[in-house]
Amino acid sequence: MKIIIINGPNLNLIGQREKEIYGNIQFDDYVRILKEHFQGFSVEYFQSNVEGEIIDQLQEANKKSEGVVLNAGGYTHTSVAIRDAIASIKIPVVEVHISNIYEREEFRHVSYLAPKCAGSVIGFGLDSYRLAIESLRFIKRQKT
Amino acid sequence: MKIIIINGPNLNLIGQREKEIYGNIQFDDYVRILKEHFQGFSVEYFQSNVEGEIIDQLQEANKKSEGVVLNAGGYTHTSVAIRDAIASIKIPVVEVHISNIYEREEFRHVSYLAPKCAGSVIGFGLDSYRLAIESLRFIKRQKT
Amino acid sequence: MKIIIINGPNLNLIGQREKEIYGNIQFDDYVRILKEHFQGFSVEYFQSNVEGEIIDQLQEANKKSEGVVLNAGGYTHTSVAIRDAIASIKIPVVEVHISNIYEREEFRHVSYLAPKCAGSVIGFGLDSYRLAIESLRFIKRQKT
Amino acid sequence: MKIIIINGPNLNLIGQREKEIYGNIQFDDYVRILKEHFQGFSVEYFQSNVEGEIIDQLQEANKKSEGVVLNAGGYTHTSVAIRDAIASIKIPVVEVHISNIYEREEFRHVSYLAPKCAGSVIGFGLDSYRLAIESLRFIKRQKT
Amino acid sequence: MKIIIINGPNLNLIGQREKEIYGNIQFDDYVRILKEHFQGFSVEYFQSNVEGEIIDQLQEANKKSEGVVLNAGGYTHTSVAIRDAIASIKIPVVEVHISNIYEREEFRHVSYLAPKCAGSVIGFGLDSYRLAIESLRFIKRQKT
Amino acid sequence: MKIIIINGPNLNLIGQREKEIYGNIQFDDYVRILKEHFQGFSVEYFQSNVEGEIIDQLQEANKKSEGVVLNAGGYTHTSVAIRDAIASIKIPVVEVHISNIYEREEFRHVSYLAPKCAGSVIGFGLDSYRLAIESLRFIKRQKT
Amino acid sequence: MKIIIINGPNLNLIGQREKEIYGNIQFDDYVRILKEHFQGFSVEYFQSNVEGEIIDQLQEANKKSEGVVLNAGGYTHTSVAIRDAIASIKIPVVEVHISNIYEREEFRHVSYLAPKCAGSVIGFGLDSYRLAIESLRFIKRQKT
Amino acid sequence: MKIIIINGPNLNLIGQREKEIYGNIQFDDYVRILKEHFQGFSVEYFQSNVEGEIIDQLQEANKKSEGVVLNAGGYTHTSVAIRDAIASIKIPVVEVHISNIYEREEFRHVSYLAPKCAGSVIGFGLDSYRLAIESLRFIKRQKT
Amino acid sequence: MKIIIINGPNLNLIGQREKEIYGNIQFDDYVRILKEHFQGFSVEYFQSNVEGEIIDQLQEANKKSEGVVLNAGGYTHTSVAIRDAIASIKIPVVEVHISNIYEREEFRHVSYLAPKCAGSVIGFGLDSYRLAIESLRFIKRQKT
Amino acid sequence: MKIIIINGPNLNLIGQREKEIYGNIQFDDYVRILKEHFQGFSVEYFQSNVEGEIIDQLQEANKKSEGVVLNAGGYTHTSVAIRDAIASIKIPVVEVHISNIYEREEFRHVSYLAPKCAGSVIGFGLDSYRLAIESLRFIKRQKT
Amino acid sequence: MKIIIINGPNLNLIGQREKEIYGNIQFDDYVRILKEHFQGFSVEYFQSNVEGEIIDQLQEANKKSEGVVLNAGGYTHTSVAIRDAIASIKIPVVEVHISNIYEREEFRHVSYLAPKCAGSVIGFGLDSYRLAIESLRFIKRQKT
Amino acid sequence: MKIIIINGPNLNLIGQREKEIYGNIQFDDYVRILKEHFQGFSVEYFQSNVEGEIIDQLQEANKKSEGVVLNAGGYTHTSVAIRDAIASIKIPVVEVHISNIYEREEFRHVSYLAPKCAGSVIGFGLDSYRLAIESLRFIKRQKT
Repeated sequence: MKIIIINGPNLNLIGQREKEIYGNIQFDDYVRILKEHFQGFSVEYFQSNVEGEIIDQLQEANKKSEGVVLNAGGYTHTSVAIRDAIASIKIPVVEVHISNIYEREEFRHVSYLAPKCAGSVIGFGLDSYRLAIESLRFIKRQKT
Repeated sequence: MKIIIINGPNLNLIGQREKEIYGNIQFDDYVRILKEHFQGFSVEYFQSNVEGEIIDQLQEANKKSEGVVLNAGGYTHTSVAIRDAIASIKIPVVEVHISNIYEREEFRHVSYLAPKCAGSVIGFGLDSYRLAIESLRFIKRQKT
Repeated sequence: MKIIIINGPNLNLIGQREKEIYGNIQFDDYVRILKEHFQGFSVEYFQSNVEGEIIDQLQEANKKSEGVVLNAGGYTHTSVAIRDAIASIKIPVVEVHISNIYEREEFRHVSYLAPKCAGSVIGFGLDSYRLAIESLRFIKRQKT
Repeated sequence: MKIIIINGPNLNLIGQREKEIYGNIQFDDYVRILKEHFQGFSVEYFQSNVEGEIIDQLQEANKKSEGVVLNAGGYTHTSVAIRDAIASIKIPVVEVHISNIYEREEFRHVSYLAPKCAGSVIGFGLDSYRLAIESLRFIKRQKT
Repeated sequence: MKIIIINGPNLNLIGQREKEIYGNIQFDDYVRILKEHFQGFSVEYFQSNVEGEIIDQLQEANKKSEGVVLNAGGYTHTSVAIRDAIASIKIPVVEVHISNIYEREEFRHVSYLAPKCAGSVIGFGLDSYRLAIESLRFIKRQKT
Repeated sequence: MKIIIINGPNLNLIGQREKEIYGNIQFDDYVRILKEHFQGFSVEYFQSNVEGEIIDQLQEANKKSEGVVLNAGGYTHTSVAIRDAIASIKIPVVEVHISNIYEREEFRHVSYLAPKCAGSVIGFGLDSYRLAIESLRFIKRQKT
Repeated sequence: MKIIIINGPNLNLIGQREKEIYGNIQFDDYVRILKEHFQGFSVEYFQSNVEGEIIDQLQEANKKSEGVVLNAGGYTHTSVAIRDAIASIKIPVVEVHISNIYEREEFRHVSYLAPKCAGSVIGFGLDSYRLAIESLRFIKRQKT
Repeated sequence: MKIIIINGPNLNLIGQREKEIYGNIQFDDYVRILKEHFQGFSVEYFQSNVEGEIIDQLQEANKKSEGVVLNAGGYTHTSVAIRDAIASIKIPVVEVHISNIYEREEFRHVSYLAPKCAGSVIGFGLDSYRLAIESLRFIKRQKT
Repeated sequence: MKIIIINGPNLNLIGQREKEIYGNIQFDDYVRILKEHFQGFSVEYFQSNVEGEIIDQLQEANKKSEGVVLNAGGYTHTSVAIRDAIASIKIPVVEVHISNIYEREEFRHVSYLAPKCAGSVIGFGLDSYRLAIESLRFIKRQKT
Repeated sequence: MKIIIINGPNLNLIGQREKEIYGNIQFDDYVRILKEHFQGFSVEYFQSNVEGEIIDQLQEANKKSEGVVLNAGGYTHTSVAIRDAIASIKIPVVEVHISNIYEREEFRHVSYLAPKCAGSVIGFGLDSYRLAIESLRFIKRQKT
Repeated sequence: MKIIIINGPNLNLIGQREKEIYGNIQFDDYVRILKEHFQGFSVEYFQSNVEGEIIDQLQEANKKSEGVVLNAGGYTHTSVAIRDAIASIKIPVVEVHISNIYEREEFRHVSYLAPKCAGSVIGFGLDSYRLAIESLRFIKRQKT
Repeated sequence: MKIIIINGPNLNLIGQREKEIYGNIQFDDYVRILKEHFQGFSVEYFQSNVEGEIIDQLQEANKKSEGVVLNAGGYTHTSVAIRDAIASIKIPVVEVHISNIYEREEFRHVSYLAPKCAGSVIGFGLDSYRLAIESLRFIKRQKT
């Protein structure tokens, strides 16, 4: 199964800053762990701080992947454009958040993306990504 | 690992009604599947339509379980009392929803419970329960 | 035709308190009058102050009745769980209020239940119950 | 008993358009059925698309009728002026809606008229009118 | 000075109903008193329950009067169209209310008309009309 | 193609007042220009300040025209009744505004009519009407 | 008749600043004109920028005056305390504003004071004060 | 004087959990202290996590007690049904909160119960209960 | 123990006006009763209608008293400045209201002061002051 | 006349996806049709998913074009920055939407851009672009 | 250049309390440092807890100073009257806050004063005052 | 001291357009003036219309600069992503606005960035940048 993880703004800093929240591990290293865990999966990784490049990548994924794990960071709460991108593609997109966004500021309680995603996994630290891939595997199995 | 699944109002009807949403399987049967999947786990199951009995059970779980998978159904969006129960116990509670609550009426977008839960798994059908137990396993491992 | 009247919190006090609003008649006596009026009908009556027991009863009614007259009292304005129960059953539920809820506090102007009911009868005192049964009779006739 | 039915904007189209909602019957024919049903009643019928003419008619009714069945259509949700007209007359006015307005757009959930009406009957198709006349008969009996 | 008093919906009932609020005097009689009070003034009077006819009359007044005393009744709080009519004419319009609208329901605290009027006189019973004509006299004097 | 232009309140004053906004041309003259521009079209014109007469006319148009150009003026922002009229007829209605309503007061940013119209043309002065007829021509062509 | 005019914050600057709004006349001079106009009246004048001193003065007025003309300036929109003072005294208080507050910022459209005043006179420049005294004279006459 | 203390959801955990907030003392022990303090009083104690059972108990209290001290916990902010129960009984109910609810989440600032209670005592730890009984003693004395 | 009672605007009228609410007793006399009740206490009393003088007094109290009983009257609902004064001093401040503010207008349901007070006593008439001093005595004891 | 069409996020997918909404035609092909239709016009076309690149292009257009047709897609409802770009350039910008945005989610009813545009054309499918160019042609003519 | 610093409620406590926020230095001492820093400037200082006295002082400043540095403390968020005072004077007023008001409670995010000030300096501790005087110097230079 | 000025969307047009607001000077020239003013400072300048590139630059600045002067233009009011970037870096960021944003549209009164900035300087034209650098100098001194 071909999967792509798309990370949004500031998530390139995972492992470098705010380690008490995100731990010491760099995301690249974490992707390596995920690949080992999901034998027989192709797990690609993309990160950008630019809203439009995330949209580009979602459109791209639609052509070459079977599922997307998306952590859109701050754009989660403000981007109608990413929502439209998710709605316009056919492969399932699973929304992921590292921290529990409901414990934080009120504007983070609203997600423009969730209504167009297959589902959401929120608040389990980096393990949210693993659970999201698990769910994509299950979604694929159900279809076949 | 000892886990309890607590289901709230109307979730006793899973498998009997609205099968296009919830599938044909009865929840009791699904629990059996889960038990097989999670070898070495004790998976208890409790359901009630009464808000206060869910609180009773959460307090009980705190004494005898290591984690709770909670689908509070309609009480998710209205119950400060269940929120307080979650906040007052020490074992991790994972919030689960079968359908994507963000696709539905606006009053379902607010969860009183989420800010006090370890995390949330939303929208993957019954598979949300499996992912929630996965996450509880991971949380326990991280602590030890 | 088999019908059940379900009354919610504090409605057990009808005829005992606030007589200027509800009159002197006890609800049990009123049910007797209704039975006489609707010859050939089976009219059952259930009251509870517990939200979850109203849900239990709605699920029960679905198995043995052909229509529900529901006055959920204060739960009308706060209960997503009862709304879900109404949505999950197949027999028609008619919402009833004794007083004109639109003359009262603003939080009583919102009904979580109305959108899932067959219809609503509001403000005619105890006669609201009679009209509701009339409407259930008509609904049944139309179907056949 | 002398009763007048006042229908507001677009309700002249009943039976001609949107038949899946309103059925095939023209309102004039339905009035004839009502008259047969309520032997000994005088049932007048008035329709206008003009807000002010509905007010005129309510004032008129106060002089010559004993009760009003009012379906103000779209003016229900916007007209303070009709509300004031209801408040200024002495005979009981019963609010009627053919469809369940709580299933529709949110602006239809607010009724300016309800707080000044004797009661409301909502969602039973044309049968709402019959139930409303029933309620007026009961109100009259109680007074005498 | 040529002045016209325009009264909106339900104000034709002054002196006939709700006498505890509006007194025993009919508005026609009151107009006669005003005419005596304002010697040398031409005081015309127009009433309609129809929003559009009030607009017609405001446009008419612009051609033949020097000032308007307007009590738009319930339309005060809902009519953008009357607001636009006031804005489009050149003679001063003074808004008048018999009762203190701020003591009443919250939706009566908003006036669509006030921002386009020369001024407002609120709450002095029928005497509000006299004060309004006083103010129009003053406005005319200031201009000349 | 048979088309009718329906203008709402205060739009009879075009060309007479507020010429800096609407220009010097009277609407009747403008209709003549439109007729010349759209050879082979029948372009009728109706104006009323009365909300209910606009509804009457929309119902009428449904019988004899193939499209409506509607500028409901101030009723755009307040009339559920006109919205219902548009929804109940089958020919396409195009919403038109002379000025840019989004530059004006906030209550003008909401249109009750737009969701039920085929489309909207806003802010191009009188030319909005020409563009609206253009769009109706295109809609007709697409259907055939 | 003994009357006191109470002016709130910044109204001591009338006639000195923003002359395009308030004219060239100082308020002391205007009071002199009012005294001449209302022969046989005692017209006192008090101004303070301090909210609490306006309350002191209202309490004082209750002992020695028969009516108050109150322009509370900016406190109109923020002072529950002045509202309570008006409610606690027995003589009539008439609210006055020089400019049309409904043409200005939205927070000026709300008056905490109006619901407790006998009435309001808004937007007629300094002439608002004269009209307010006129109204107090009328209120006194009606009582006797 | 016969008094009953009714505690709502999660308050059975007082003295067991969150001791930094509620202290080490169990509520049963605290009731014993209260009984000693209020010699000649009968102080009963009831706790339930179930909303409807609190309503049952309030109705019961009306028959056998002279006053209620009510800490409805999380139901304070969501329960119209308990509000109605308080409104329907005749003995005084005093609302009590252990912590300062105004320092906590915003949804805790709203109390559905307070408007129907005799008064409220908020934020003094367990001592709030003693003060509430003090107040009930005073209310009784005043009546006699 | 040295205590000061600070009363805000219009509370100097206690016992003189609105006796049905506040009783016949003057506050000075009530303070004398309190002093007798609390033997060994120094109970000072201060009242002002001026917001800033209440702040002055709170700062003063911090130097010479051990607790404050504060009834800020109308300023309770509008004064960020008094809130800041309470937050900046070290001695406990107990908020007091004579009437049940939750039964009154909605703007009285918000207290800027409560979150910074030790606790609140609301709705017990003048007895609220006694209960507040009781609570201060308890707070002092707990600290020592 | 030199014109540029600027399309925002996801509009590169026109003709490829959601064909039931946008038809089978690719936008490049549609631009060719437009060029044929508007003989003597230079029609450039630019698309980007990146908000900032749309701003770049608007600034660029100001130097080399005489009018812009802008469909900002999802940015329409969230971008203050594009609004500022439109406000800062001198050539007219016409806002275009393919679908009727008022039929869709509520957050799509607000346009940050409309108040700064010359006008808006909404809901006519791809034909909206043709009408927009028509309007730009008219705007240019009026100026000369 | 003649400048006056006006400090509002509770700011007399700077240097005495909450030293972790405001430091150890008394404001009088800080004014001395400012005077040394701004050679050739006259720097006056005024503080009051009374809203109306701040207004008095602003009016006074207009006669004898060339600029005002204003920290209105809690009145910033509630005072329309101070806003009006700033609007009515001609010399520039610069708004200053010691702490970052946007990090604090939401009601502190609104400033009634800012729209009428020359500019705002927020969050730099006491240094905000120095920067404000810098800005006044620059404003004066630009004018000459 | 190494400082970077980051300007957001449309701020590349300073000095070219809307000169009445921003003056004739180009920002590059102004940077030169700033460099002369702040001898011994390294002042870098970056501008982009792309939200993500501003985030890139903030992350970059964290590695090589000691402070940031940030004018995020329109993104100030909409960007959670830039807020997160500011929160994730360690060097102080000072928010700057050229015009008084509180005089403009209401959506400009909210800043997502301010709560995470060291402070804000608003409304002093280009001089806001100089004051911001002044403040960064002071912040650095205080730390050492």
